[in-house]
Amino acid sequence: MIEYRDLRVAVLGAGTVGSQVARILLERADELAARVGARLELVGIAVRDVDAPRDVQLPRQLLTTDAERLVLGADIVVELMGGIEPARTLLLQALTSGADVVTANKALLAAHGDELFDTAAQVGAQLYYEAAVAGAIPIIRPLSDSLAGDEVRRILGIVNGSTNYILDRMDRFGESAHEASARAALLGYLEADPTLDVEGHDAAQKAAILAGLAFHTAIAESDVYREGITAVTAQDVASARAAGYVIKLLAIAERTADPDTGAPAVSVRVHPALVPREHPLASVHEGNNAVFVEAEAAGSLMFYGAGAGGPETASAVLGDLVSAARRHLVGGPGVARSFHAELPVLPIGSVTTKYHITLEVDDEPGVLATIAGVFSEHRVSVASATQTITDGATGTATLVVGTHAALERSLAAVVDALRQSSAVQAVRSVIRIEGDQP
Amino acid sequence: MIEYRDLRVAVLGAGTVGSQVARILLERADELAARVGARLELVGIAVRDVDAPRDVQLPRQLLTTDAERLVLGADIVVELMGGIEPARTLLLQALTSGADVVTANKALLAAHGDELFDTAAQVGAQLYYEAAVAGAIPIIRPLSDSLAGDEVRRILGIVNGSTNYILDRMDRFGESAHEASARAALLGYLEADPTLDVEGHDAAQKAAILAGLAFHTAIAESDVYREGITAVTAQDVASARAAGYVIKLLAIAERTADPDTGAPAVSVRVHPALVPREHPLASVHEGNNAVFVEAEAAGSLMFYGAGAGGPETASAVLGDLVSAARRHLVGGPGVARSFHAELPVLPIGSVTTKYHITLEVDDEPGVLATIAGVFSEHRVSVASATQTITDGATGTATLVVGTHAALERSLAAVVDALRQSSAVQAVRSVIRIEGDQP
Repeated sequence: MIEYRDLRVAVLGAGTVGSQVARILLERADELAARVGARLELVGIAVRDVDAPRDVQLPRQLLTTDAERLVLGADIVVELMGGIEPARTLLLQALTSGADVVTANKALLAAHGDELFDTAAQVGAQLYYEAAVAGAIPIIRPLSDSLAGDEVRRILGIVNGSTNYILDRMDRFGESAHEASARAALLGYLEADPTLDVEGHDAAQKAAILAGLAFHTAIAESDVYREGITAVTAQDVASARAAGYVIKLLAIAERTADPDTGAPAVSVRVHPALVPREHPLASVHEGNNAVFVEAEAAGSLMFYGAGAGGPETASAVLGDLVSAARRHLVGGPGVARSFHAELPVLPIGSVTTKYHITLEVDDEPGVLATIAGVFSEHRVSVASATQTITDGATGTATLVVGTHAALERSLAAVVDALRQSSAVQAVRSVIRIEGDQP
Repeated sequence: MIEYRDLRVAVLGAGTVGSQVARILLERADELAARVGARLELVGIAVRDVDAPRDVQLPRQLLTTDAERLVLGADIVVELMGGIEPARTLLLQALTSGADVVTANKALLAAHGDELFDTAAQVGAQLYYEAAVAGAIPIIRPLSDSLAGDEVRRILGIVNGSTNYILDRMDRFGESAHEASARAALLGYLEADPTLDVEGHDAAQKAAILAGLAFHTAIAESDVYREGITAVTAQDVASARAAGYVIKLLAIAERTADPDTGAPAVSVRVHPALVPREHPLASVHEGNNAVFVEAEAAGSLMFYGAGAGGPETASAVLGDLVSAARRHLVGGPGVARSFHAELPVLPIGSVTTKYHITLEVDDEPGVLATIAGVFSEHRVSVASATQTITDGATGTATLVVGTHAALERSLAAVVDALRQSSAVQAVRSVIRIEGDQP
């Protein structure tokens, strides 16, 4: 029988993830001790209500409402309560008292990451957060360590499972936005406040974390341009399909140059995008997540798996906990973070990408020429234009225009001009194209 | 201007990968210094012949034939010479002298990993080897750290790019084995000794490394059951395609139980396998690599990217070098390695999987019943049997049998019995099926 020293682990929160983490810590104590070289002793689980019903039966004597006291006696604090406060204050107290921290709280990291990382660096404590992005898929370590000697050019991520589920149902089963969203809600795929998912807030928080790591630059959620999926219609999905694309909500982080000065810069944005059917991201179905990374030397990499769920997120938390415990025993830094590059984040108007534009136009001779003139006037080059007569009686046609790469602000000027053109009845949708061949 | 302390980096070998690593160390010195917090000073590159022609122009004064002297003055040694000796001796010297080591040498790790890791542990030095498996794809850190709190059930890996290229050409373009292999050779995809690729030795070395990490058990290359792709014919590929499969050379590591005792055990093997078309591994084309991991809590994960190539492998090496340098400055362990589980490795006869068997049989009444009897006698359950008349004149038919999961030794007994059966003219091929629904 090997005798191990004990490391005192405090878990904050006993929701879906917290209760799974606690269960595994108790059930697999011996195996984890062998992997770490120390026993991970679960000293307590902070909850709001000791008597609340829970999915997993947890020993009553481990539950406490006094999170502050629990934190101060711990070697490692695992924060799974979510939200900004009291999580922020508790983690600052934990770090200051010399404890290492594992968290899955993307909202907290996106809002107060700097403060937490600075505090950890000052006291030499570790701060791990693999579970904050893309559930069980390892992406924080690959970006911060494995690619630390490379130059990341671009990240295209499907990082929100519920919106991917909705868009996937619309694409593969022809469901309406209503149907697909209702199904996602019934399956428990949506957050308690669904706007966090469908308006892209959750994806924007993750985009900020990924971009910060990839570009060695502090990126806040407020730096991230954001559009959700609420404007995506079944018609958009069908039109994308007809053109060989599938619509995905992407978190995009791109190393680029300022179009005005040529200076190095980055773009970080979340929006629905047309992805070519043959792109690996196009086959990410249901609620799965995937992060596609393009780096100068490594080329294209993809990381794929379940993006959410209690056991899946618990896996990422426990991986961090084992890593933190191993380093707690001997010292040394945790997941590395370097923000030395301080690259500017471009406004969305300075971003260059391609566009898929659907217009309702008069079915008359000369209309196509007029519209083509609008694009060329603003120096946006048209790659394809497909006109379909939709209503012979009213003389209405649908015109789908695909562009070559263009500046977003030029495209915005095109769209303004189209709206004012007498030939155009309506600009039905404008969706960016990503992951295409240049 | 920030002043950094210097870390002395020695590179052993200036082949495709070594010269790329040296180039990036020189060209990106400032950026890497900012990421590490110390300058990575390239103090020398050990080569066999200073005057040999190289793809990348390297400063003449950095080249030396005295590898031993170079190693003894270094803080971090990057070994990219390959082969067992002198690499083994030089790395042991490096570790003993207190240097940290980064290596891409899978053959050395598969043969002498224990010795190297034990030495590193004794002196508290770090040993990194992300580049040894699947090129730039991060897989060592995900297995050793990210999944450290989870239970890996199975790994299915496409870890040899050249054999994947050959099988992919045969599948997608209907090329013969000769054509596809010649094309791979012309493109420089095959090792100098192509048997390392086509006989599965390279994949077996990688399987040993992955299985060791996943199962916390020391696994040597000699523990790995190995079959290459030399027996795979164009007919096999076509027959697999007709049945909804694609043939891939897989490195498989599986947590299982001894069929005789029920005790926990692992199976580690490399062989061609039929993979269902809808499995994510089926879409890994050309020379790409992918590792599919199934874990208890994390579910299914996949890691995908380029498996080889100078810049790609250099990316992995530099990621390790930056990680090693960061920890060299402050201490602490490198990539964790725990072999506490010591699970037994099952012989291939004790493995359970499904099979796809192609027979030439007499086209006569009762033949199917005879053959079905052979299977049932050995308790191998038949899932499907498809007979096609191939030669009406000679009365020969092709019979393709798909089995349910069965013990390998039972299947071997079936094949022996079939070979002796008067109804069977020839057993044309027996290929395992992996990644299928249970």
